[in-house]
Amino acid sequence: MPKQVDHAGRRHLIAEAVCRLADERGLEGVTLRDVAARAQVSMGAVQRCFRTKEEMLVFTLGHIGEQVGERVRARLVRSPAQSARTALGHAATEVSLLDEAHRAEARVWLAFLAQAAVDESLARTLRSNYAALQGVFVRLAAEAAKSAEGAGAAEGAAPFDPLVEARTLLALADGLTAHVLIGHLGPQEAREVVHTHLENLWECLSRPAHPAS
Amino acid sequence: MPKQVDHAGRRHLIAEAVCRLADERGLEGVTLRDVAARAQVSMGAVQRCFRTKEEMLVFTLGHIGEQVGERVRARLVRSPAQSARTALGHAATEVSLLDEAHRAEARVWLAFLAQAAVDESLARTLRSNYAALQGVFVRLAAEAAKSAEGAGAAEGAAPFDPLVEARTLLALADGLTAHVLIGHLGPQEAREVVHTHLENLWECLSRPAHPAS
Repeated sequence: MPKQVDHAGRRHLIAEAVCRLADERGLEGVTLRDVAARAQVSMGAVQRCFRTKEEMLVFTLGHIGEQVGERVRARLVRSPAQSARTALGHAATEVSLLDEAHRAEARVWLAFLAQAAVDESLARTLRSNYAALQGVFVRLAAEAAKSAEGAGAAEGAAPFDPLVEARTLLALADGLTAHVLIGHLGPQEAREVVHTHLENLWECLSRPAHPAS
Repeated sequence: MPKQVDHAGRRHLIAEAVCRLADERGLEGVTLRDVAARAQVSMGAVQRCFRTKEEMLVFTLGHIGEQVGERVRARLVRSPAQSARTALGHAATEVSLLDEAHRAEARVWLAFLAQAAVDESLARTLRSNYAALQGVFVRLAAEAAKSAEGAGAAEGAAPFDPLVEARTLLALADGLTAHVLIGHLGPQEAREVVHTHLENLWECLSRPAHPAS
């Protein structure tokens, strides 16, 4: 009986090995040979999965993006009764990769982000990741703003643009990821930044505009 | 007459060469040999300025940080009559390195940020840069909030913490730098994010708190 090879499974296995190596030595230090050794497959098997190192890195980046997106969605599904506000806060914190458990993922993500600034195929993969996350954030922000209106936000409250808010949260999340990794902020301080930003926003949405003088 | 060597000047010259090379090929691609060629000095001269590549990178990172800090301060000095609000907006935009003219600097900064996540001596230099910038932002945010109070912000307006706001703006700036570099956002969209964030903040500070129901 021929050996069954689960191609998709093997690609994910290899992506995991790339992540661990990239976390240890940076993206530059990832070689096909070391990846094969770490994933416990042959060099040939790696080469059948990915024609080039570039292709392997692009797949790995997509793999991390999927994992983050999956965790955000899982968190939303787990607490369907939570308000859109709470959900948006959780999603922003999740994307910031502040948990100790996600520190390695955060380092690899930041390495990809920096590399994507000089590598168009990585940039393309990242853009599609951000577009998907942004979609989730826009939807949650719009729902949260709507429920603020429903709760009786005064007429003339500040105009609210869910797209701009989604962009703000995604940029804030990446900045916080980096600042925690280099030790400028502690994870708890970073959480406070997200929390305060959103609290101010909801407070502001629920207040009447300053009367024109 | 012995040749006069301006040691400090030469170090800055070399740092500029490191920046240009790092922009072209990433930090990993920077070798002492290529730096010497680019700076038009001998290998020996580079080695007399910096004992190791690490030391050269740390100096270069400090050099970029100084340039950014200098531009922020210059912008504040140039328009002393501007309000603290306006100044804070300008400072945040300046730090985001959104101008086309600063695109190379932004790429190198992001590369250093990612590398600092796995290199403690780079992280130490970055932290000192962020601490200095944060100091400027805290001062401007506190002044801006004070002038909002002076202008008659209602009692019970949302509590405002200049330190949290400074952290927010610095994280937002770095996130936006990255998102413009990878093409997720255009520079104008990034400026809109900073602008909207600050507008919401000032609006919120100048409004009376929602009456308790």
